[in-house]
Amino acid sequence: MAQATFEEISASDFFYRNRDIAGFTNPSRAIFAAIRELVENSLDAAESQKIPPDIYVRLSFEGEASKDTQIYKLRVEDNGCGIHPRYIPSAFGQVLYGSKYKLKQMRGTFGLGGKMAVLYGQITTHQPAYITSSTGLPKIYSFKLMIDIQRNRPIILDRKVLINKEQWHGTIVEFTLEGDYLRARSKILEYFKQTAMVNPYANLTFVDPKGRLYKFTRATTDMPNPPQETEPHPYGVDVELLQRLIQVTPHKNMLDFLKHHFHRVGDVTAQKFLEFSGLNPSKNPKKLSHEEIVRLMHNLKKFKDFLPPDASCLSPLGEELLKAGISKELKPEYLVVHQRKPATYAGHPFIVELGIAYGGEVPSKGSFTIYRFANRIPLLYDEASDVSFRVISNMNWRRYKVSLDMPIAIVVHICSTKVPYKTVGKEFIADRPEVRREIANALREAARQLQHFLSKREHVDKERKRLGIFAKYLPKIAQFSAALAGKEKLPDIERLLKSVQKYGDEA
Amino acid sequence: MAQATFEEISASDFFYRNRDIAGFTNPSRAIFAAIRELVENSLDAAESQKIPPDIYVRLSFEGEASKDTQIYKLRVEDNGCGIHPRYIPSAFGQVLYGSKYKLKQMRGTFGLGGKMAVLYGQITTHQPAYITSSTGLPKIYSFKLMIDIQRNRPIILDRKVLINKEQWHGTIVEFTLEGDYLRARSKILEYFKQTAMVNPYANLTFVDPKGRLYKFTRATTDMPNPPQETEPHPYGVDVELLQRLIQVTPHKNMLDFLKHHFHRVGDVTAQKFLEFSGLNPSKNPKKLSHEEIVRLMHNLKKFKDFLPPDASCLSPLGEELLKAGISKELKPEYLVVHQRKPATYAGHPFIVELGIAYGGEVPSKGSFTIYRFANRIPLLYDEASDVSFRVISNMNWRRYKVSLDMPIAIVVHICSTKVPYKTVGKEFIADRPEVRREIANALREAARQLQHFLSKREHVDKERKRLGIFAKYLPKIAQFSAALAGKEKLPDIERLLKSVQKYGDEA
Repeated sequence: MAQATFEEISASDFFYRNRDIAGFTNPSRAIFAAIRELVENSLDAAESQKIPPDIYVRLSFEGEASKDTQIYKLRVEDNGCGIHPRYIPSAFGQVLYGSKYKLKQMRGTFGLGGKMAVLYGQITTHQPAYITSSTGLPKIYSFKLMIDIQRNRPIILDRKVLINKEQWHGTIVEFTLEGDYLRARSKILEYFKQTAMVNPYANLTFVDPKGRLYKFTRATTDMPNPPQETEPHPYGVDVELLQRLIQVTPHKNMLDFLKHHFHRVGDVTAQKFLEFSGLNPSKNPKKLSHEEIVRLMHNLKKFKDFLPPDASCLSPLGEELLKAGISKELKPEYLVVHQRKPATYAGHPFIVELGIAYGGEVPSKGSFTIYRFANRIPLLYDEASDVSFRVISNMNWRRYKVSLDMPIAIVVHICSTKVPYKTVGKEFIADRPEVRREIANALREAARQLQHFLSKREHVDKERKRLGIFAKYLPKIAQFSAALAGKEKLPDIERLLKSVQKYGDEA
Repeated sequence: MAQATFEEISASDFFYRNRDIAGFTNPSRAIFAAIRELVENSLDAAESQKIPPDIYVRLSFEGEASKDTQIYKLRVEDNGCGIHPRYIPSAFGQVLYGSKYKLKQMRGTFGLGGKMAVLYGQITTHQPAYITSSTGLPKIYSFKLMIDIQRNRPIILDRKVLINKEQWHGTIVEFTLEGDYLRARSKILEYFKQTAMVNPYANLTFVDPKGRLYKFTRATTDMPNPPQETEPHPYGVDVELLQRLIQVTPHKNMLDFLKHHFHRVGDVTAQKFLEFSGLNPSKNPKKLSHEEIVRLMHNLKKFKDFLPPDASCLSPLGEELLKAGISKELKPEYLVVHQRKPATYAGHPFIVELGIAYGGEVPSKGSFTIYRFANRIPLLYDEASDVSFRVISNMNWRRYKVSLDMPIAIVVHICSTKVPYKTVGKEFIADRPEVRREIANALREAARQLQHFLSKREHVDKERKRLGIFAKYLPKIAQFSAALAGKEKLPDIERLLKSVQKYGDEA
């Protein structure tokens, strides 16, 4: 019988063969994805040092590629922390190599986006990428790179060292790629607009292929604290993670092991937990058997007294900023925002923030307008697959006296040390039950307040109508009764109208 | 300035950290994904040898894991080609290792599904997986395996060799995993049902945790020919692929190079193309400069006279089977199916087959019912992100006198040597422009025929109404006029009615 032949491929080769799963599906999406991946790396690089980001993006036309696609040169400059020259080639020329594999809130999570952009440029135009970076030290390093896709290694074609007179720090990436800007244009502009909305401390400049300049100027230099790396929360660790921790721990007993490797587990909690799970506090974690590790994992999930995750490692927008952002964009008649307490899924803390805007410039189009953000990234594609969309669709809106044709916009922001994206292209968020629950609760809370506003407004409307009727007929009745009674002076209708009015004039 | 630390992670580690992108999002989807990945491997293994597949799947309850999840043992047995013992450990214990990295129509494409299932089982239950396989030779090999996730290598815990008295060939996979069968149940049963529908030559048996047996018996032993490996089509190759071909080619001149490495390029076409692109036929491909390779890639895309891809490497369902499948399931009043000619995207041939069913058991629910298949796999999740859904939604149905509340079901099957899935979990197909165009054309063709049927039916309905009116009043008129004229015998109304009838009795 003929046999199948087996082979191993590199991670780089995998994403080359399957670029769709990284968001580089077609020429229009590829150009969108390349820009956003690099912008997000730049934002992360600036925020990590609490530097107000200055990001300059230029896309220039280089020539026609086919009937529908063109060759563009993309240049992205930032004033971030820069990259040590030792790491530059791999950071842009080796897939699954990066600084993003940490438990902290970052835009990037896969260590993939920047490389995919460079890789896509290479396979469509076969030109090298140019990376220039400095960490502020006296030298600036400049690399000319390509990727050896089969071996998943960078190929350094040239390397230059320049003097850094002005202590510049940041990174400049420049490469060519095939794309369809015309079709990507509206999404790219929307991306910059929404990014500016939730990153009000950033300067974003975009020069498009026609030379048009789009500038989003920072409204504040107040910055959130740089995201902190955090330990995993005991709820939702799996056996693999436990084993890795046991492998690397310097701690010789269970008590210290628990206190040092888990988020918000102190002495008291650790002792209580060990009692709960019948483990000897002085037991050496490296001596745990396979079965004991599995039991430990289950007990970590079952124990009720762990503290909820600490939000200090997360950097939510906050209700004020969310309110300001939505008000500025939509000028709604009514706005409610709600921030949930930190929750956790699979050991990762996360916070859901949600706003509902009604009326004003919110369009009523037969369905709600939904804005989705994750770690301050706007998500613009594949809305219908996103967990937020599902929660919103499955909600019993009639209970809140809300109908789909009302002018309602819903904004959902999820921030986490690890956002559960469903695709490597970060288009939408997976339907994790814990995340779903938090969104649903936030949504219900906001919907209740919206209902309150709507029913009050309805009362006011009814009242207005009622008063309108009184106001119309009372003068006639007054006139008529005065005539009937043979009186000259009409009764005071104003006072009468006021006495039946339920709501003040402000209503 | 503090510096970011960089690290490299293994492919296995990448998917462990990002299991959402491989379809293992939550306990319900994980159990669905594990079953389908293994069933699809089994179907591929049988079809590759033209063996009518016999697949036995058993899911058994092993204990409670948490409030909502249980531990299950999953066993999948097939009668496929089996795996050579040398490859077994890596085939199930090493991510990005496999037999699926070929240009041929297969269900599996990522070389990932089976490993993800085993990996998910390991991180949730920490139990090893048992793989037993034979290629029909005198020995059966049985492995007890785990995965070293950080190194992306299998760990062989035990290995047994048995005598294969009955020349059995096939593979048995057994492992435990955490999951939520109750919530996954309806999708799993739907998956088996739809799989049986498009694989009528397969026996599928599923025993669920309650011991309920679901059996789908084959309706035929006629099998499609095993999928053939094929060369890339010249439209849509990229620079990387060209370079790889140039690296490995034994051919010393461009003419031979083109003839031997590209799909449907013969002597005449190759010569014409070389003339078109101004290349010397005797030039050694290994001597091409970077610029020449890029120009070659563009010219391959531009040249108009390449033959369309040959469908022989694809195994579509065919209009007959599609018709039979839909008729059996939906018993529609009207059914039209349409198979497109083979097309190509990024060098991969593909065929779109589409059916529209009207009435019968098709529900009318305010939107169309959509069935999606890719290489005979039913796609059950994330419908709204699928290219088919988008094409269907964006279609101007009014032009075809079709409204969304009609009882209409649309079945789309895409088969290809490489289906452009958007997620590693194979939930939906990316919006590639070439694929979109083929679906749209198939849809328009089918919609036109549906419109024809509907308008004919409308005419018939109108006619019936008209005749009904005549039939109602004519006898009265006849009676009345006969009385007026003083005649005994009424005129022959039947003949009169027939004379105004536009459609025969069969209408």
